[in-house]
Amino acid sequence: MRTAFYISDGTAITAEVFGHALLSLFPTEFNHKTIPFVETEEQAYAVIEKISESFQDTGERPLVFYTVVNPDVRRVIARSVGINYNFLDQFVAPLEKIIGVPSKPEKHRTHSIHEKTYDIRIEAVNYALANDDGSNLKDYKEADIILVGVSRSGKTPTSLYLALQYGIKAANYPFTEEDMGDMLKLPPALRQFKQKLFGLTIEASRLSQIRSERRANSRYASIQQCRMELREVENLYRKEKIPFLNSTKYSIEEISAKILAETGLQRRKY
Amino acid sequence: MRTAFYISDGTAITAEVFGHALLSLFPTEFNHKTIPFVETEEQAYAVIEKISESFQDTGERPLVFYTVVNPDVRRVIARSVGINYNFLDQFVAPLEKIIGVPSKPEKHRTHSIHEKTYDIRIEAVNYALANDDGSNLKDYKEADIILVGVSRSGKTPTSLYLALQYGIKAANYPFTEEDMGDMLKLPPALRQFKQKLFGLTIEASRLSQIRSERRANSRYASIQQCRMELREVENLYRKEKIPFLNSTKYSIEEISAKILAETGLQRRKY
Repeated sequence: MRTAFYISDGTAITAEVFGHALLSLFPTEFNHKTIPFVETEEQAYAVIEKISESFQDTGERPLVFYTVVNPDVRRVIARSVGINYNFLDQFVAPLEKIIGVPSKPEKHRTHSIHEKTYDIRIEAVNYALANDDGSNLKDYKEADIILVGVSRSGKTPTSLYLALQYGIKAANYPFTEEDMGDMLKLPPALRQFKQKLFGLTIEASRLSQIRSERRANSRYASIQQCRMELREVENLYRKEKIPFLNSTKYSIEEISAKILAETGLQRRKY
Repeated sequence: MRTAFYISDGTAITAEVFGHALLSLFPTEFNHKTIPFVETEEQAYAVIEKISESFQDTGERPLVFYTVVNPDVRRVIARSVGINYNFLDQFVAPLEKIIGVPSKPEKHRTHSIHEKTYDIRIEAVNYALANDDGSNLKDYKEADIILVGVSRSGKTPTSLYLALQYGIKAANYPFTEEDMGDMLKLPPALRQFKQKLFGLTIEASRLSQIRSERRANSRYASIQQCRMELREVENLYRKEKIPFLNSTKYSIEEISAKILAETGLQRRKY
């Protein structure tokens, strides 16, 4: 199997995202290897040695996706026996002409603690944890968004992703059976922040499956119970005109991107 | 200010990562606009209309980073008045020659629920939440890694990132003052999983600052207390030969990448 290397003097996240996106266009399996924090020439020589070994072992030239700021390190990597994709570089010179200023590469410019919005993201993660599962109604004033839905409809991982990726403060509130009673009504704690609410729903069969992994053969996981709860929350969303999304077929990345697109919520990190 | 558009028929995460990495090389501010889920020609026409408006408003041709699988949608976007970067495309034909098979683009191939490892990642997130802050010692058998350290040294956000990004099950255990006593010893619950432990430490002044945001003027946040606790845990790491990292200058992305590189831990998602 051919090896794909992702190499950087930083985390190598950019190299990975680019390389994966490109390789995912092919119906081929690869052996993936990430080597982050290659910051000295000596380390770079060790890396190209590994690339040579992989070539010898597999008989196929490895694919090498790299982003490296230090020119000495970059020069070494460029000499590897792999097929080298310094994929940012070829866009730089044309872009300098368009923007009209020279590029000014700095180390650790992305995914680092030096990013302007780093503290905001960590604060948002702490906020999401402190406001998970309706645990802290008094902080809703601070929320950018409050995700609502039945237990296990995807609220918590989505809140965390919104925080980590975008620096958005997302609280989440679960509608429980106690709320259901005769007919689900909007709890007073939520009503005053109605404009911040976003509902999640999910197909009953998928919900039942997810809940069964938690508590097999329980009423909580039964298809009847799931159907009843989902009917109640969807009725509430419609009645109260709360925007909502069926999460069944979507990843948390997709749910988050859809929420941003639909609500126009301002993200704090780009 | 010039606008940078990130456009896709999926989440646009790939377009964003590539575009941000490229633009971060320039000492210039941009106005960022992401438009995900552009799935029909009609939507694509609305998008190029927005690009035209931005050109008219700013007098500068917008930069347009896009990845679109649907050829009809792609053709429309390619006709925008912006400077268009269909940055994956130019790598595809040469790569087809190297790999020896034609590419087979499919929609939602990355960042979607259809990724093989999606469920593993969500399970890992749930694991990290259930095993946050030493809350669930009996599940440590299942852990891929157990992060240890004093309160507020970065364990929780790092566990969540390892789960979300890599599908790694990371528990975390806080050493508290009660553990310190005369001399910090490894609690029995941890000793049996010693090979899974990874320590975090942090500079005392930074820790004191972070704790002060939580409880200002407390003993908990005092520099003396922080120094004492950090001295104790660092001594323990050395004595027990637990690998550790000083998180002061690193983002959670960097901490996570360093942990993977140092421990050789196998990630479940690439």
